[in-house]
Amino acid sequence: MTFANVGMLGTKPGRRDALVAILLRPKPGLREAGCLLYEVGVNEDVPDAVFVSELWESAEAHQASLQLDSTRAAIDEAMPLLSGETAGHRFTVLGSPLR
Amino acid sequence: MTFANVGMLGTKPGRRDALVAILLRPKPGLREAGCLLYEVGVNEDVPDAVFVSELWESAEAHQASLQLDSTRAAIDEAMPLLSGETAGHRFTVLGSPLR
Repeated sequence: MTFANVGMLGTKPGRRDALVAILLRPKPGLREAGCLLYEVGVNEDVPDAVFVSELWESAEAHQASLQLDSTRAAIDEAMPLLSGETAGHRFTVLGSPLR
Repeated sequence: MTFANVGMLGTKPGRRDALVAILLRPKPGLREAGCLLYEVGVNEDVPDAVFVSELWESAEAHQASLQLDSTRAAIDEAMPLLSGETAGHRFTVLGSPLR
């Protein structure tokens, strides 16, 4: 079942764009790990936050991806930028009115 | 700029699956209105809620889609099912590590 992870990562003041750069960097093995979609963005009304919308082949694929070297390196690099505030949702995709 | 709308719609008790059915119904004109992605799902840990992850060609395309006959009919049908609780995020997509 396709798994969705959507939400917000708060950053320390002024560190948003640095986090965006880390998240946008191509990550070897990400697609092969089952990542179907990984959109990264911002909202000018929420200046110290980065938003993501991810789709994965399964919840297990998402969980396993956290052990990829490229993911672990990104997490290590991102951690000092984060405020600790997060929000979001995880859900099982049932379908789409476009399909 | 691609626009993302992600979040949760709370439903009255037991009305989740009825809302899912409305959201999943094919909607004439949705793709032509600029809808790139519209995933609908659930989370068994949050029983009275439906989750969506949408991508649109622009924020304006999303706004204009609310006037489509198919969208207006779905909103009218869905309103009695909703609890009024909503949560989510809107953001401008900057890119993806998959591209």
